[in-house]
Amino acid sequence: MTKTLIIMSHPDVAQSSSQQFLLAAIKGEERIQIRHLESILAEQENNHFDKRIERACLQEADRIIFQFPFYWYQCPSVMKQWMDEVLTLNLSQKGKKKELGIVVTVGAKKDRYAAGGSVGFGIEELLRPYQALANQLGWNYQTPFIIYQFQYLKETQKQQLLVDYLYYLENGSHYFSEKEQWMLEKLEQYSNTHTGSVREWIVELQQEREELVMMLSEMGNEADGF
Amino acid sequence: MTKTLIIMSHPDVAQSSSQQFLLAAIKGEERIQIRHLESILAEQENNHFDKRIERACLQEADRIIFQFPFYWYQCPSVMKQWMDEVLTLNLSQKGKKKELGIVVTVGAKKDRYAAGGSVGFGIEELLRPYQALANQLGWNYQTPFIIYQFQYLKETQKQQLLVDYLYYLENGSHYFSEKEQWMLEKLEQYSNTHTGSVREWIVELQQEREELVMMLSEMGNEADGF
Repeated sequence: MTKTLIIMSHPDVAQSSSQQFLLAAIKGEERIQIRHLESILAEQENNHFDKRIERACLQEADRIIFQFPFYWYQCPSVMKQWMDEVLTLNLSQKGKKKELGIVVTVGAKKDRYAAGGSVGFGIEELLRPYQALANQLGWNYQTPFIIYQFQYLKETQKQQLLVDYLYYLENGSHYFSEKEQWMLEKLEQYSNTHTGSVREWIVELQQEREELVMMLSEMGNEADGF
Repeated sequence: MTKTLIIMSHPDVAQSSSQQFLLAAIKGEERIQIRHLESILAEQENNHFDKRIERACLQEADRIIFQFPFYWYQCPSVMKQWMDEVLTLNLSQKGKKKELGIVVTVGAKKDRYAAGGSVGFGIEELLRPYQALANQLGWNYQTPFIIYQFQYLKETQKQQLLVDYLYYLENGSHYFSEKEQWMLEKLEQYSNTHTGSVREWIVELQQEREELVMMLSEMGNEADGF
């Protein structure tokens, strides 16, 4: 099974509703380790990361996720400090390739990042430095997972986010039908926590998808990758 | 006259030959203010920037230059901290637009940044976050000034760099002939420091350029913008 390491940076994680939501989503996931960089740094006496520990965590992981809010179109400064202090080209390994995922929360609306929007560049272009970093370290860069305006999401949207997020942490971005199957299997494994409403929603979604696939098929379209 | 503020970040500026070279180049330039962020931060008791002071410096400047070495395709963490703590959208002003220039020193060869190179993305694309930041603040983004592999530059190349750098600090990237004229005028103003050899070099270069323009003209080409 894949082992995922989340390198998370947020200067005030207790006050962040989105980060709290994401943290709650992975509660009980044994294959996922989280390192909240600001907390770790606060415990260091010299205000530097312990390279040995950080690198050991990286070595053990199959998937590495950088999770952070977008501050001036980059990660917060503490995550940059972690990169500057911890990452070296020696971390690129022979054998099985590590994967690098990016989970970024964005305060502005999505259309600000479109051509002609006030930012003027797409998120994926703004995240190029992380992609270049992955290239250099020999890690497989995953399509970034972007959460726009978490505070305005409706309850159903949050449930969908939860599923998508968990799926991303383990598998990256793949076809939607694979994701459904994965989630249903996952729900079999543990029936505690917050899964009741998610299960209902998945089933609903599955029905909707089947209808949609039929509709597309009637219109003569392939429903590939849906 | 334009007032230029250099926001400079380098964790060990005394040991950096490129930064020392650039600092020497602007010695005596009254219209250029430098703020070395690591030194400033070291003097603060709480490890945070004084927003009031930093913003006052920004307000006074016509041109702002972010000067830094490329660490993992971004600025060092202390400059990111400065951005996170100091910059706000309120800094975008009515009236004369500020300009934002980027001076970045790069350790790798230029061709690594070409398509197919080991990095895979051009520097200008990797610098998009700064361009987006300029867009949001209503500042005019200037073509970045990139210095590749300073340590391998020959003496003549360093002299050219000096002229180009000083020109960039005051004027941005423009046509080469304008730059020559500007430099010659500048040399009239102060005949102290390191200008002797530069003057010679400029004159030489001017002759070469004139020959080249004639050659191009003979070949039926316009020598526009040379």
